[in-house]
Amino acid sequence: MNKEQYTVAVVGATGAVGEQVREVLEERAFPVKQLRLLASERSAGQFLPFQGNQLRVEVLNEESFKDVDIALFSAGGSVSAKFAPAAVAAGAVIIDNTAYFRMDPEVPLVVPEVNAKAIADYKNRGIIANPNCSTIIMNVAVWPLHRVNPVRRIIVSTYQSASGAGAAAMEELRTQTADHLAGRRIAPSVFPHPIAFNLFSHNTPIAPDGYNTEERKMIDETRKIFHDPFIAITATCIRVPVMRAHSESINLTFDRPITPDEVRAILQAAPGVEVVDDREANRFPMPIDASGRDNVLVGRIRQDISRPDGRGIELFVSGDQLRKGAALNAVQIVELLAGR
Amino acid sequence: MNKEQYTVAVVGATGAVGEQVREVLEERAFPVKQLRLLASERSAGQFLPFQGNQLRVEVLNEESFKDVDIALFSAGGSVSAKFAPAAVAAGAVIIDNTAYFRMDPEVPLVVPEVNAKAIADYKNRGIIANPNCSTIIMNVAVWPLHRVNPVRRIIVSTYQSASGAGAAAMEELRTQTADHLAGRRIAPSVFPHPIAFNLFSHNTPIAPDGYNTEERKMIDETRKIFHDPFIAITATCIRVPVMRAHSESINLTFDRPITPDEVRAILQAAPGVEVVDDREANRFPMPIDASGRDNVLVGRIRQDISRPDGRGIELFVSGDQLRKGAALNAVQIVELLAGR
Repeated sequence: MNKEQYTVAVVGATGAVGEQVREVLEERAFPVKQLRLLASERSAGQFLPFQGNQLRVEVLNEESFKDVDIALFSAGGSVSAKFAPAAVAAGAVIIDNTAYFRMDPEVPLVVPEVNAKAIADYKNRGIIANPNCSTIIMNVAVWPLHRVNPVRRIIVSTYQSASGAGAAAMEELRTQTADHLAGRRIAPSVFPHPIAFNLFSHNTPIAPDGYNTEERKMIDETRKIFHDPFIAITATCIRVPVMRAHSESINLTFDRPITPDEVRAILQAAPGVEVVDDREANRFPMPIDASGRDNVLVGRIRQDISRPDGRGIELFVSGDQLRKGAALNAVQIVELLAGR
Repeated sequence: MNKEQYTVAVVGATGAVGEQVREVLEERAFPVKQLRLLASERSAGQFLPFQGNQLRVEVLNEESFKDVDIALFSAGGSVSAKFAPAAVAAGAVIIDNTAYFRMDPEVPLVVPEVNAKAIADYKNRGIIANPNCSTIIMNVAVWPLHRVNPVRRIIVSTYQSASGAGAAAMEELRTQTADHLAGRRIAPSVFPHPIAFNLFSHNTPIAPDGYNTEERKMIDETRKIFHDPFIAITATCIRVPVMRAHSESINLTFDRPITPDEVRAILQAAPGVEVVDDREANRFPMPIDASGRDNVLVGRIRQDISRPDGRGIELFVSGDQLRKGAALNAVQIVELLAGR
């Protein structure tokens, strides 16, 4: 797909990810001929800024995709399921930020730093899937190591921000925390449990094996993106009272022994990664530092002393859930698609 | 040590743990003849409630321990180092909540649910050490399993509350969060990094191997308490914006295969443990539920699917850092010491 300028549709334009998509497209000067902001009836009619103009949010319907080259969907799986066919029929290529198409073997699931080449498979169905945010953030940090020395097992525990549940969840974290501090009664509405000064297991359905859907995504999507169905992964996904960056404690077992110095050198040269690992100053990846940043911050790099064979490494990472975890990754896919 | 009533000294009486010690002693009706509240000059002179009376906080000095039977120290390692000899010389038995004596081979390190018998060794030096809070919470959940099927490896990531850094840190979490919400500038003072809507690697010194002191405590203390120098442990300790309960994501490798049902049955019968593992309702251990509670909450019990040999189990736990993580454990030791 090679054009001078592109007509781009953003489905879910008023959401937290939709807002970031506009911001990232503008920031990276993607050649947008027309930006079409689409949302449900409830949100339509608002005006949102893009490149100095105020654009009106239109109601999403089957006719929305006429002349659209690229459609970025982030309005939930059911919206993707319902409107993807119309978008594809209109000739648009879809970058879908929901889970709906991710495990479809015909649909490429892409983290540009990992498997950019898979983008070519968009031709199968006209759809490219953007992975789960926790998956992307982990993969950016782990892939460069996996390339050099295959990772055999990943044990990850997450510290996930409110933004992963959308703008309303971020607002709930804010107002509920203020209510709590003021001694007012708290009534969770977006989240099932209080989020102010609390944390809880990720509120997605739990399979008979005990893993919730978020954990299952991290496992299955990583295997698909790494093109390695045998990599052993276990995940524990936890929601924490943080605004918009996810953190992850990652324990890796490699095929062969590997040292922290090797890991540090590989990560320092890796795209999309910034090593933040200052033991003296006790400064490591933190959500407030990762927020608004493109790179995934990686630190606490050390040999896992529970493995005397030297094949274990511990890492701690933070990445902006809305940017690299969603909008930025999607726009990077758009750039690759446009041959930029 | 068998008396009708005991004279008890609380060193660090105005701190977050000191406050809980008073509360727990009162709640559990420990037979206190006299409670002596001791603190630095800065905090002395305050009056604090105990059993319906207001007790004056006295300045800690070498003479403070006359006629004291039991002295609970929680005023920092340097205070324990300085005043323990005077307390022991006066005939008091010390329950020390700091790290100062914990790894002394002559000093028993006790979690009553795990190694109550070790208390007898208090006679060596007149001192019993209360373990690190994260260690206690993990040990209460892991020990009953270890007894049945030896745990060979523990990979733990923590979600530690502000209370672990004391009352001033809890206050900093409160005021800093309010400042952040009001758009006021934040200037961390107790913690080195912002804690409002943020998290960071535990701010203790980092050894050349990359592990910080908190992580080292979890490793070394668990080995001492379990009386198992070979158990392989790696830990990642993270501070989160939660008030007073620590949570931990725990990955266990057992000697032999073990099922989640076996684990659940063992934990349901274990002292100090409450299984909170409702997959249907998506209700698992949370800090707000653990706060003010004596039991360690354990849930997310599932087979680690990254280990096809059936020897892996995942757990998620929450425990009150001030109670079981500190004051309650210390008072339980006092009760055992008093033969109650």
